Amino acid sequence: MRAAIARRGRMVVEDVPEPTPGPGDALVEVKACGICGSDLHTLHHADSLLTVAELGGAEVTFDPEADFVMGHEYAAEVVELGPETDGAPVAVGDLVVSMPFALVGAGIEPIGFSNTYNGAYADRMRLTAGMCLKVPNGLDARRAALTEPMTVGLHAVNKSGIKQGEGALVLGCGPVGLAVIAALKSKGIEPIVAADFSDRRRAMATAMGAHEVVTPTTEAAIDAWKRVGGQMPVVLFEAIGVPGIIDQAMRDAPPLSRIVIVGVCMETDHMLPLVGIVKELNLQFTFYYDPIEFGDTLRHIAEGELDVTPMITGVVGIDGVPGAFDALANPDAQVKILVEPGAAADITAV
Amino acid sequence: MRAAIARRGRMVVEDVPEPTPGPGDALVEVKACGICGSDLHTLHHADSLLTVAELGGAEVTFDPEADFVMGHEYAAEVVELGPETDGAPVAVGDLVVSMPFALVGAGIEPIGFSNTYNGAYADRMRLTAGMCLKVPNGLDARRAALTEPMTVGLHAVNKSGIKQGEGALVLGCGPVGLAVIAALKSKGIEPIVAADFSDRRRAMATAMGAHEVVTPTTEAAIDAWKRVGGQMPVVLFEAIGVPGIIDQAMRDAPPLSRIVIVGVCMETDHMLPLVGIVKELNLQFTFYYDPIEFGDTLRHIAEGELDVTPMITGVVGIDGVPGAFDALANPDAQVKILVEPGAAADITAV
Repeated sequence: MRAAIARRGRMVVEDVPEPTPGPGDALVEVKACGICGSDLHTLHHADSLLTVAELGGAEVTFDPEADFVMGHEYAAEVVELGPETDGAPVAVGDLVVSMPFALVGAGIEPIGFSNTYNGAYADRMRLTAGMCLKVPNGLDARRAALTEPMTVGLHAVNKSGIKQGEGALVLGCGPVGLAVIAALKSKGIEPIVAADFSDRRRAMATAMGAHEVVTPTTEAAIDAWKRVGGQMPVVLFEAIGVPGIIDQAMRDAPPLSRIVIVGVCMETDHMLPLVGIVKELNLQFTFYYDPIEFGDTLRHIAEGELDVTPMITGVVGIDGVPGAFDALANPDAQVKILVEPGAAADITAV
Repeated sequence: MRAAIARRGRMVVEDVPEPTPGPGDALVEVKACGICGSDLHTLHHADSLLTVAELGGAEVTFDPEADFVMGHEYAAEVVELGPETDGAPVAVGDLVVSMPFALVGAGIEPIGFSNTYNGAYADRMRLTAGMCLKVPNGLDARRAALTEPMTVGLHAVNKSGIKQGEGALVLGCGPVGLAVIAALKSKGIEPIVAADFSDRRRAMATAMGAHEVVTPTTEAAIDAWKRVGGQMPVVLFEAIGVPGIIDQAMRDAPPLSRIVIVGVCMETDHMLPLVGIVKELNLQFTFYYDPIEFGDTLRHIAEGELDVTPMITGVVGIDGVPGAFDALANPDAQVKILVEPGAAADITAV
């Protein structure tokens, strides 16, 4: 089968052996898979996955020097159920999504960040059948594939403990920031102020529920917040994930604020602890989500409560994945590109 | 009067003009004042006070190039009440403590970190009469002077939200770490594991309530925690305040842990955000306390519920303050040195 492979910092497309479903596995055909910003980071910082694995207490089996196939935001159709899948919640022919983990013995293998479980930048892949959720309500694969990134936003908002009477300032309107905005809106948070340099992303932030958007070159994000939110308590969501942003957010944050860090920065970062101390700031790092949040998000999208359509800006085939990685470096050109194995190598606007 | 002055990074002792109590002021005679680790930091990082003031939203009146007299952990006797002090909660002759802030017009002036309100490394000082608390129950000045640093520990523990069923790992057993341990003990937290390189400070940690103490050169603090606390949830208290400790605490912390940062680091620090992200850590910075916590701590000490006696290791006169700053660089020699204006210039062991 065809696959886009991460190989020592570069993306290459090649034919690779077909995966074979083992006990408990579902073999699925990829229908759509979003390209995640963390995949772009991971391409150049694959070593970080070792850190992730070690910190998670997992046995480290990942070799950053060996090939791996990324892609963890997928919707896929079940084509075969392996042995020991009686009672699985899905059947051949079902369109499914799953949290990107395979259950392997006593542990888990992160799908898309593994040398053994290929991700969804490929024609087919193995999932753990018991982890699959059937996509309900006739929802199409494109929007179903947004379940994963939208859940990241929901989890960050849940983890923040934000409640009505508090406002939000979202720094960065890439897919993660947009997912945060959507989750804030669904919780009735007001006002939501969002900052991004890109015109397109700011427009999308408005579409997803931001009450005010700001270009940081024109007005500092925190000044926009103060103009709109006044003295109201505010929770800052850092959804950029590059060095220096946490430091800036700490300097900007009003005393006693919470800063939720949902952007994934894989490099060493700096800060001035005194800033946090004097203002008694709280920094909450967030990552992933739980199965309930994942299922809730799928249902919200399927029932039309959460419209992710504006976020999908392009579709590309597997052969076009390397080019799509490059295109995502320009934040005005694209927000979420979906990989559809059968699509053309050039990015098609949606 | 005599005063130990911070002058461009050096401590010098000189005669300075007597303070005159203005409207609302009490003139007090210093009886005892603890030397705080943050004073040692401040001597070499006085510029940081500008950051503090700016971040606090205060009008910046502090000039780090000009002289200032530190000392904010004081017990003192009221010798004169200035104009407009009718109804003040204290009278001439009272032994008092206060939070180290003077009310000045609409703002506050931090006593001991101000060019205009001298701190307690001096014979006399001005306090805001309405901020003074009379020391109850015949408590002596030495122990009353510990009210301020012990409140810092209580506040950090309150802010952490730690509750029974969770354990604590305290990194650093200087006065701040010891105050944290005492507050944890008073809340019934168990186990409390404490780490310090100094034999003396570890012994003191045990005296203040630690259930297990560890020398990091012999056993990593987190390993000692795991040995004692097992799989129990843990809150880490960072009470060291030097660069690199937050990073280390983040690497050591079990997933979903809270790290409370109570050590004051005035330098730029580094961390790997990915570590926080993967483990969904929460970092709570703490600073100061509220008047209720301050009054509670005074009462706990005065009623014998909180015995601070073991922490007081030396007494020195004003002329000995520069030498005491040097002595505190050796953590095995001293924990809390009190300045008593009438005492000898050489440190007297207590």
